[in-house]
Amino acid sequence: MLPKSQIKLITSLTQKKYRNEHRLFIAEGLKTVTELLDSHIQLHHLYISNPKHSLLNKNHTLISAKDLKRISALKTPPDILGVFKMTEPKTINTKGLIVALDDIRDPGNLGTIIRLCDWFGVKDLVCSRNTVDCYNAKVVQATMGSLSRVNISYLDLENFLEENKNIPIFGTFMNGENIYQKALPESGIIVMGNEANGIQDSISKFTNSRLAIPRFGDLKATESLNVATATAIILSEFRRSFTEM
Amino acid sequence: MLPKSQIKLITSLTQKKYRNEHRLFIAEGLKTVTELLDSHIQLHHLYISNPKHSLLNKNHTLISAKDLKRISALKTPPDILGVFKMTEPKTINTKGLIVALDDIRDPGNLGTIIRLCDWFGVKDLVCSRNTVDCYNAKVVQATMGSLSRVNISYLDLENFLEENKNIPIFGTFMNGENIYQKALPESGIIVMGNEANGIQDSISKFTNSRLAIPRFGDLKATESLNVATATAIILSEFRRSFTEM
Repeated sequence: MLPKSQIKLITSLTQKKYRNEHRLFIAEGLKTVTELLDSHIQLHHLYISNPKHSLLNKNHTLISAKDLKRISALKTPPDILGVFKMTEPKTINTKGLIVALDDIRDPGNLGTIIRLCDWFGVKDLVCSRNTVDCYNAKVVQATMGSLSRVNISYLDLENFLEENKNIPIFGTFMNGENIYQKALPESGIIVMGNEANGIQDSISKFTNSRLAIPRFGDLKATESLNVATATAIILSEFRRSFTEM
Repeated sequence: MLPKSQIKLITSLTQKKYRNEHRLFIAEGLKTVTELLDSHIQLHHLYISNPKHSLLNKNHTLISAKDLKRISALKTPPDILGVFKMTEPKTINTKGLIVALDDIRDPGNLGTIIRLCDWFGVKDLVCSRNTVDCYNAKVVQATMGSLSRVNISYLDLENFLEENKNIPIFGTFMNGENIYQKALPESGIIVMGNEANGIQDSISKFTNSRLAIPRFGDLKATESLNVATATAIILSEFRRSFTEM
């Protein structure tokens, strides 16, 4: 039986307040856990309910499926849960391509965007303070391990853009320039807006390049793309010109 | 108070079996409901817990928030729920661009792909019989109303591809041709594979053009893109060459 104190600590990590207090977060499922074990992120402790996972050869405790269910944040608990140490963000490299998120609220969207940054070689993701926490269990789950390969900083986005207003700052707007016809640079900041409200005015005033993803549907009715799919298309456009021809 | 028989009917619609029996499905939330009301999809009945929605001027019943919670499939029930009639799929236009799904299981992924088809003017989406049902409440939710603008057919995917093997059939594979360097046609079939297993062999044998989305991340570790974000990038590539220059 897992001691109550440990159950209490682990379940407390579903809340940002306690994650920050303990500087710990949880990751569940074999794929995500092994990706993090193979990364620079440090393991605090591993809980497994399937003895075969002891082969991972890490500091672990074999517990019952019932106990794993107790500490899991998922509806369908997996047979492996890792408690990892949060890392301090590194200095942001403003010479590279940076994705900046203005109040992204959905954990699945943030997780997908982290995975996209990883795929497209975007090293730095900066998030406004109201953006969902990247150590939220659902975000960690959606990143499929790429959390360890993207440097994520939470900061005052207005200040950050003000300090970097001399470099290209891109935003997508319905009335922006057709992204397919625009020469895009290898570096700069791409701002993506909130799911419901887009980029807020206090942020959009810093964008010095306005882009649009053309719509091909017949009807005016198609209103918008989901922020994660829009990020996919935009990053693909930024990178496609630098592919070896 | 909503009669028990109505509650029973509506809650039964969370199951595919009963949706098919009654040829009805539910949509929740003002955005999705109004998009469907404005479409060719026929309303069966509307339930509202907020009197202001009576302005929609449709055949409706004002019920308590408590009753709406009883019939809602969502954790946070909205103040409007519509029961709509399922439509029969139209004939597939094999002269246009078609997206074909091989066993997509996640409702959020299917909903996002339907929304992408709508955005990029893809009129026909064909789904293998094991693909999640497009009338699943979570799918309907994720489509944000675009369900009414894409013709979705469930069929034997092997048969469909066999019958159409004379037209270009595209699939994405790790070892495919760089999609950025390939001239892509205005029509054809784009096959997207299952979240965990990709395109199965019995389906991939029909693909006569193998594409790859280049990866820019430094490490070999980034394994794959989510199927919805991959679909976004692929559809963007198919359409970008036909944008007015």
